[in-house]
Amino acid sequence: MTSPYSLHARSSTCAARCGEVRTLHGVIQTPIFMPVGTQATVKGMTPENLLDIGAQIILANTYHLFLRPGHELIRQFGGLHRFMNWHKPILTDSGGFQIYSLKELARITEEGATFKSHLDGSTLFLSPEDAVGVQEALGSDIMMCLDTCIPFPATRVEADKATALTARWAKRCRAARKETGQLLFGIVQGGMYPDLRARSVEDMVAIGFDGYALGGLSVGEPTEVMYEMTGRAAALLPHDFPKYVMGVGTPEDLVECVSRGIDMFDCVMPTRNARNGMLFTSQGRLVIKNACYYNDQRPVDEHCGCYTCRNYSRAYLRHLYMAREIMASQLNTIHNLYYFVHLMNGMRQAIIEDRFEMFRKEFYDMREQEVPSI
Amino acid sequence: MTSPYSLHARSSTCAARCGEVRTLHGVIQTPIFMPVGTQATVKGMTPENLLDIGAQIILANTYHLFLRPGHELIRQFGGLHRFMNWHKPILTDSGGFQIYSLKELARITEEGATFKSHLDGSTLFLSPEDAVGVQEALGSDIMMCLDTCIPFPATRVEADKATALTARWAKRCRAARKETGQLLFGIVQGGMYPDLRARSVEDMVAIGFDGYALGGLSVGEPTEVMYEMTGRAAALLPHDFPKYVMGVGTPEDLVECVSRGIDMFDCVMPTRNARNGMLFTSQGRLVIKNACYYNDQRPVDEHCGCYTCRNYSRAYLRHLYMAREIMASQLNTIHNLYYFVHLMNGMRQAIIEDRFEMFRKEFYDMREQEVPSI
Repeated sequence: MTSPYSLHARSSTCAARCGEVRTLHGVIQTPIFMPVGTQATVKGMTPENLLDIGAQIILANTYHLFLRPGHELIRQFGGLHRFMNWHKPILTDSGGFQIYSLKELARITEEGATFKSHLDGSTLFLSPEDAVGVQEALGSDIMMCLDTCIPFPATRVEADKATALTARWAKRCRAARKETGQLLFGIVQGGMYPDLRARSVEDMVAIGFDGYALGGLSVGEPTEVMYEMTGRAAALLPHDFPKYVMGVGTPEDLVECVSRGIDMFDCVMPTRNARNGMLFTSQGRLVIKNACYYNDQRPVDEHCGCYTCRNYSRAYLRHLYMAREIMASQLNTIHNLYYFVHLMNGMRQAIIEDRFEMFRKEFYDMREQEVPSI
Repeated sequence: MTSPYSLHARSSTCAARCGEVRTLHGVIQTPIFMPVGTQATVKGMTPENLLDIGAQIILANTYHLFLRPGHELIRQFGGLHRFMNWHKPILTDSGGFQIYSLKELARITEEGATFKSHLDGSTLFLSPEDAVGVQEALGSDIMMCLDTCIPFPATRVEADKATALTARWAKRCRAARKETGQLLFGIVQGGMYPDLRARSVEDMVAIGFDGYALGGLSVGEPTEVMYEMTGRAAALLPHDFPKYVMGVGTPEDLVECVSRGIDMFDCVMPTRNARNGMLFTSQGRLVIKNACYYNDQRPVDEHCGCYTCRNYSRAYLRHLYMAREIMASQLNTIHNLYYFVHLMNGMRQAIIEDRFEMFRKEFYDMREQEVPSI
């Protein structure tokens, strides 16, 4: 398997590294954060807004697009890129996590996942082969294997069983893929059992993928456990391939996971929290509806260069939020995504200049938080 | 009273005319449509989006801003322009129409309007002098007198009484205004009684304003009655001042009112309908949720040059609408406002080239509608 990844620099004090991943729609610089565009749109952001904040790649959800408008429609349009007018890389998840989130509405068998649509209650089926076929129709640059996520807590027997099934499904995904030039990533499961994680890494690497993701993290476990699982698995994964932690996380999580060798991240947090009026700043979180911002002429973050901070006051953003204006979601999302994208840019630069530990310390100093031990 | 209006051209076949109005934040070209930004934002449109579609002036609602966030806060920010990051002209209404819309929650006396806030039910009072003071605090380029709107239908006695009160309030507004450079427009009432309209025109002109608006139209009366009232009143108003019909209207209304000599328009229709999935096109209206657009690769309007039509298919817009995505409102609003703004641009050009009647005929031909008689 030739790797789409090239290493550019690594930290001399931790596992943090900087590189690039080559895809059909261009190269992405890692470590990177991928804004989530669940239904073929990053909520409130035009493609131009995304380019403006420096987004290089976005994520779309296979489960949602499979249901509506349907992958065959998107295939007719020449794929997701043309359909949604985003011409840079797209990663699609496999639908596994969304189906897992349906809980009792989903049933997992050896063959695949049977589940009820959250839209109309109809019963649908997705096999590992289907998941790849749907993602090929969507035309994403990076496809993910169908996996079975493990809840937290889970018994060792449950975790073992699900991890083994994920491996068998991964093999079927690998066998089903066509030579489209799209990349296919395997997903490491194993719950919170380090030895199962290690075996899952071995299984995935034996099958051979273009990159490796850690799934089933940030599902309710303590943050330290997530960091430990990430660090252990990242160390076992082949260093010449991209490493991706799915669905993570807070700014702190990004810094900690990068320091443990992770290259790629996605999370709904910056976009969802923006719509709920929670803004990320270099000093920590800011809840815009708070009365103290009523007449605050300052931008959200005086250290931020985003469109929102360059043009609008906290008072105006609070007004828009209280008045339930669409513009509140738009301006808050621009700010939060800019914050996440620029946090990653800052880490990349720090790794290149081999001052990642300094960057990390300053990151916590600015928020008056203690630096956690790696 | 020196006029802020200059005439550039007039049609040789009807009352349509083309000119400009000079304001503190620049000159606007008339006839013009003003997008509505009720709560200090045009829903879903950044100021850059507004500039992109060619908007030259927007309207904001005094009633809403008086309630939230309050005009004193906006004064602290140096006015609405700075608060909302829109640096071209702004017209504010007086709050009269919104208070009228509160129906039994409002009580009109000689002194002013007592009403209950739709936000928290608190009892508030606005006098004609207050309405001007609030608009001076907002710093709008064009302020409107506080008026009392007349329902349809209304008896002659009711209409007469309200029209006379509007005149007395207009006098008080005129007396209260300070020398800020902001323009102040009078509002002609009179219900659907031509002689009351004529007397209201006389009253307003006698007081003397920077421009004249027709209020109390599009309140439920038949379209032909609205056109007739507009035509008669416009003919009586002084031709060296701007003429504005408030809250109007459909594309057809704009064409008909321009042909009757009107210079300025505002209406929530393009923005509100956009959010409800109704799109304006050169061929008429298009309801984007209709099943026939499921896989329609065409833009909303093949004759349209807006951002939405240049980049997105009907199928994608239908998907966004069905999925209740914010982007549906954003892209639909861009399209509808572009349509309205460019319809006005088309009329201006046609008047300059003295081919307005041809323009009007083509406008109806494209929609396969009969041309109404003027």
